[in-house]
Amino acid sequence: MKLSLWCIGKTNESYLKEGIQQYCKKLPHYLPFEYIEWPDVKNREKLSIDLLKKEEEKLILSKLSTSDYLILLDEQGETMSSKGFAQYLQKKGNSINGTCVLLIGGAYGFSEALYQRANGKISLSPMTLSHQMVRLFAVEQLYRAYSILRGEKYHHD
Amino acid sequence: MKLSLWCIGKTNESYLKEGIQQYCKKLPHYLPFEYIEWPDVKNREKLSIDLLKKEEEKLILSKLSTSDYLILLDEQGETMSSKGFAQYLQKKGNSINGTCVLLIGGAYGFSEALYQRANGKISLSPMTLSHQMVRLFAVEQLYRAYSILRGEKYHHD
Repeated sequence: MKLSLWCIGKTNESYLKEGIQQYCKKLPHYLPFEYIEWPDVKNREKLSIDLLKKEEEKLILSKLSTSDYLILLDEQGETMSSKGFAQYLQKKGNSINGTCVLLIGGAYGFSEALYQRANGKISLSPMTLSHQMVRLFAVEQLYRAYSILRGEKYHHD
Repeated sequence: MKLSLWCIGKTNESYLKEGIQQYCKKLPHYLPFEYIEWPDVKNREKLSIDLLKKEEEKLILSKLSTSDYLILLDEQGETMSSKGFAQYLQKKGNSINGTCVLLIGGAYGFSEALYQRANGKISLSPMTLSHQMVRLFAVEQLYRAYSILRGEKYHHD
């Protein structure tokens, strides 16, 4: 399985960029991994929230292959411990042959069509994280998950 | 109420420091706020986990006043949404006259005596965050909570 973490829009804060990069460098030691920031929708400030979500939906659907397994990082998703997340990824790794796309939504979340296209939904926290900070949280949890699966010392119970 | 966020040990990563500082600068606009990193226990590498937790307990208990209201940020704590956290803080603000200390534990969590001293426990996520990254998460959630209480635009439902 190849793991592809997608988000929409550049990371604005340099401190977040730096943290994200640190984990993005480490993850390919565990599995084929890529991190993609798709460009923001043009003139987004002028769109209504619904229209913006629709445009983000079009962008994402145009980038997805039909064979991609799509998991949304979504507040409404399944909650799990870091160990549970590691087991979840292990299971997916055993059953998915192609690419597993983990998608972080824009500032207003996902359109209905993306919920329908999704194969799964995961919640990182019942609290709302900024859609920028959640990127750092996500790469850290991915790193933690694979270090757990390898039995490395990074994670303490 | 004065809010005091405590953690143990310096923040090692400069990118985390930068992010934490950004939120620490904003929080005093909402309420008296301080962020304190107590020094790491000396020779911590040579101590067993239990002894290290005991030393961290001594440090924290020596810094707490008997009147301080102590809330642990702990995986075993109460989970809540960001809005729920805002309401929780509002309630505490109405009932606590002195200082509310939010304590982030060391890498191995809290000793039994700290659990017993605590007035409350909150979980930011069912996932384990690094004890360094959780600092950034915590200040962002505090900022989010107070911006929710003020009816500002930072938070989207």
